[in-house]
Amino acid sequence: MYRTHTCGALRMEHVGNRVTLTGWVQRIRELGGMTFITLRDRYGITQLVFDEHAPKAVTDLLPELGREFIIRVSGQVRERSSKNPAMPTGDIEVSPDEMEVVNRSELPPFLIENETDGGEELRMRYRYLDLRRQVLRDNMMLRHRMAQEIRTYLDQHAFVEVETPFLIKSTPEGARDFVVPSRMNPGEFYALPQSPQTFKQLLMIGGYDRYFQIVRCFRDEDLRADRQPEFTQLDCEMAFVDQEDVLNTFEGLAKHLFQVVAHYDYQDRFPRITYDDAIGLYGTDKPDLRFGMKIADITREVQGQGFKVFDQAEYIGGICAQGCADYSRKQLDQLTEFVQRPQVGAKGLVYVKYNSDGSFKSSVDKFFDPDRFQQWARLMNAQPGDLMLILAGAREQTLSALGMLRLEMGSRLGLRDPEKFAPAWIVDFPLFEWDPDQQRYTAMHHPFTSPKDEDVGLIDKDPANMRANAYDFVINGVEIGGGSVRIHTREMQEKMFEALGISKSEAQEQFGFLLNAFRYGAPPHGGIAFGFDRWCAVMGGSDSIRDYIAFPKNNAGRDLMINSPAPISKEQLRELQIKLANGSDTG
Amino acid sequence: MYRTHTCGALRMEHVGNRVTLTGWVQRIRELGGMTFITLRDRYGITQLVFDEHAPKAVTDLLPELGREFIIRVSGQVRERSSKNPAMPTGDIEVSPDEMEVVNRSELPPFLIENETDGGEELRMRYRYLDLRRQVLRDNMMLRHRMAQEIRTYLDQHAFVEVETPFLIKSTPEGARDFVVPSRMNPGEFYALPQSPQTFKQLLMIGGYDRYFQIVRCFRDEDLRADRQPEFTQLDCEMAFVDQEDVLNTFEGLAKHLFQVVAHYDYQDRFPRITYDDAIGLYGTDKPDLRFGMKIADITREVQGQGFKVFDQAEYIGGICAQGCADYSRKQLDQLTEFVQRPQVGAKGLVYVKYNSDGSFKSSVDKFFDPDRFQQWARLMNAQPGDLMLILAGAREQTLSALGMLRLEMGSRLGLRDPEKFAPAWIVDFPLFEWDPDQQRYTAMHHPFTSPKDEDVGLIDKDPANMRANAYDFVINGVEIGGGSVRIHTREMQEKMFEALGISKSEAQEQFGFLLNAFRYGAPPHGGIAFGFDRWCAVMGGSDSIRDYIAFPKNNAGRDLMINSPAPISKEQLRELQIKLANGSDTG
Repeated sequence: MYRTHTCGALRMEHVGNRVTLTGWVQRIRELGGMTFITLRDRYGITQLVFDEHAPKAVTDLLPELGREFIIRVSGQVRERSSKNPAMPTGDIEVSPDEMEVVNRSELPPFLIENETDGGEELRMRYRYLDLRRQVLRDNMMLRHRMAQEIRTYLDQHAFVEVETPFLIKSTPEGARDFVVPSRMNPGEFYALPQSPQTFKQLLMIGGYDRYFQIVRCFRDEDLRADRQPEFTQLDCEMAFVDQEDVLNTFEGLAKHLFQVVAHYDYQDRFPRITYDDAIGLYGTDKPDLRFGMKIADITREVQGQGFKVFDQAEYIGGICAQGCADYSRKQLDQLTEFVQRPQVGAKGLVYVKYNSDGSFKSSVDKFFDPDRFQQWARLMNAQPGDLMLILAGAREQTLSALGMLRLEMGSRLGLRDPEKFAPAWIVDFPLFEWDPDQQRYTAMHHPFTSPKDEDVGLIDKDPANMRANAYDFVINGVEIGGGSVRIHTREMQEKMFEALGISKSEAQEQFGFLLNAFRYGAPPHGGIAFGFDRWCAVMGGSDSIRDYIAFPKNNAGRDLMINSPAPISKEQLRELQIKLANGSDTG
Repeated sequence: MYRTHTCGALRMEHVGNRVTLTGWVQRIRELGGMTFITLRDRYGITQLVFDEHAPKAVTDLLPELGREFIIRVSGQVRERSSKNPAMPTGDIEVSPDEMEVVNRSELPPFLIENETDGGEELRMRYRYLDLRRQVLRDNMMLRHRMAQEIRTYLDQHAFVEVETPFLIKSTPEGARDFVVPSRMNPGEFYALPQSPQTFKQLLMIGGYDRYFQIVRCFRDEDLRADRQPEFTQLDCEMAFVDQEDVLNTFEGLAKHLFQVVAHYDYQDRFPRITYDDAIGLYGTDKPDLRFGMKIADITREVQGQGFKVFDQAEYIGGICAQGCADYSRKQLDQLTEFVQRPQVGAKGLVYVKYNSDGSFKSSVDKFFDPDRFQQWARLMNAQPGDLMLILAGAREQTLSALGMLRLEMGSRLGLRDPEKFAPAWIVDFPLFEWDPDQQRYTAMHHPFTSPKDEDVGLIDKDPANMRANAYDFVINGVEIGGGSVRIHTREMQEKMFEALGISKSEAQEQFGFLLNAFRYGAPPHGGIAFGFDRWCAVMGGSDSIRDYIAFPKNNAGRDLMINSPAPISKEQLRELQIKLANGSDTG
């Protein structure tokens, strides 16, 4: 038997018991003729103490041991003379009278500690060692807890878990598919799903009423730091519902997860913010609501006073940074540099200091008098002591830049509390967005999203102004999920494909099975999909999804540990009846 | 609002309430001037009744309705005059005073009833309609329940769910991989996992102690009736365990599932049968233990009596079919034909009738006297009234044929009760099997399986006789799962690869990350993987896994509903830098 207890189990009540533990050597310290070893497993750490009473057979082994050796020890549990209240097992220690080396370890390439000396690439190459660090283990445990709680909650709410296929068909709409050549059907390919979207709709048509699945999805995109070619989605769909039914159901789930996973009590109804308001007030459709600092539109109030930059701008807006009236020249220059970065894209920054004595000091003093500044202050809710920051330009870009400046100021002022969760539903998204490259409308959410009943009539004459029954779920400025009430009639779906410039034959070729299914009694239905990796990261207070994926890939889509992707053998290529385009042989 | 209740919810306590239901029209019947509609959703069926009091606006709609229309009705719940105790809602009916057609339906291509008129191909093409049939819905609900109960049980037993990657690396060992060309790394490929085997071992090395995952796996094999190119595995691994720890843990899980999913109480310890015993007594390593009828080896007792067929055979064995002494000539001929089928492969069948009067009648009467038959009867546990069935030939094939004959007799005698579950662990598998095609040993389980401690010394001189710490889990003659205690030292793993004829460089190329991981304190570990589709089918009393998969593929690996696999566009091929070997263009 390897152990009677785990390394996290022993307490005062066990004092006097003889126990057996097996685990990894975390640290070895010598102190006053005694040796202390901290022994680690998934469940915790227990201190072993070897003093003058330890048998020689045991102490003789000590010099051999090193970090990450696995040892099995048996001995008495003793009360510690100096207890460690920070450790769950800190009241006790074990005094081994037997010890065995279960497996040896070479010196690991980096420290298995929360603060490690290993660079990211090294840690990814030795991911199995990185995963031993408590920070990563805590992340994986959080992810485990999230998954279990989600399934239990949805099961209790009559959702059925149904597994949908991974070997499906490539559809040109949207991002690139990963494809899988079929050996049994030469020249043909499966595609890996970007989401189970059409299958979950078919399950609604099949009468399953409420469906969910925690499922891997695939997108062959050029990767950004926070994207992975494979990612996990919590995918859900409900029949016979309207938008509020979906929102209320998953608001319940989110509150449950706040409670049980993060011990965060959120009682209020989640705010519902329209897409237009989100853009107008926060400069983004995923606002961080942990703090206010709303954007004020001051276009009308500032124009016509002879300041050309304002007079020529489509839009002028500002935010109020509380208590920042005493910002130095240098601090203001930093902010100007911030907004001028290419990814923010503003031309310059106008500031107005509302000094504590009630006076104003601004970069545009010569164009505006204090009464004007007073008026702006009212619009931006500025008080004496505050700093007003103003950007001007094309509406969309300026709002976006103000949104980023708002986040920057939120961070500088410590308003983005990592212990706080501020959820929101963003609703009333546009149905279409114009793609200038392709010179056509594309679906903002996806082509199965239904328009608002009252906007259906616009589809032929003014599609740009149609709103969708679509919604996003946002926490702390991070988009966690999105969904919609779907189209459920063949007629509407065909109109939608038409508006998207997808021909009848293309539609039939790609989605014929769904259009056909609509013929046989399709129920009204809607759903949502959550980015599970990201939801876990946000619940753990992190913005890196990689730290919440056991075996992630790097930015080139490579798994550095197993060294994948890799060439395959000529034999494999021959069997699949494909060739490499560059003609070179592999394997 | 679409509904106040589901179609399975209403009981006597609701009589008098006004309710709203939405569902599918299952059937419309007219009877004595009244119309009855059974309305269906996932939760059940409710009878609607339209009598002379129904508003004209409602009855006017009735002629429009057809099977599978979706209607919304509101009306009073009434007590039925003739109750239907077979239906949970059979005490009540609803008398609609409002009705709306939510969506129309064309006539479905087959009957949405338990007994349908649709052939398999038609039903697969319209799988979303097939999934509406109650038999399939029950299967999906059973699968859902299995998944939830498995996760809850394992969570309670300290197992952590960890998701392993789907885009991994191709390994030549074992079955064929599906591969995925990498656009970002031209000429290189990912492979889809046949199982997360190496990742779960790395998780043990990473200190996760107990891991599980219900996960899709992929095998590009020529398909048999009960195989799918993608299938679902319950995959588990534990550290610091020996074989009995693994068996006891999952025996607990299996008993829990018998109890809660099938309401089947199984208290006893599951039998542990060695591989040698399973082959010797049942002619297979997956014996159906719902009945006895063990095979008796009578080689020694029957040889040397001048019957050439026996004298020249390596092995002679028999089974006893109770109460079959009165089998007719025709019945015996049928059994002879059965054993002579190519898939059974016996040359002929010898029978001995042990008549009720104590006399014997046999096809080999002229070679043996009654005393001999009496001796055989003792060996086969035959009593007066029984029939002994005997096969002779090469040991392995004859035992296999006897195993199939045993199952055939079990079926004929009604001994394979679909309401009964007979589980077993098969243990002590051989470590290697000889592959005559490749002229080398292959791993019977897989190359990470550890040999029995006492057999380690045989690896250089007598690998054929090495036994493995490997085990299979069998229910009712169906292999549900298999696993092993793994190798956990680099030295032993290298020896194993060597014995399998895998060179050092191949081993390093394919499994270098695992061999390296063994350097850094790898714990002893073992695990098991269950075929989840098959386990569900067996729990549902079926032998067809397709009936337990929402969207299965056919024998050619095709999804007939979405028509996949399919050609992809030239543009996609160009981006992936691959060409079709036959040179033809697609898309």
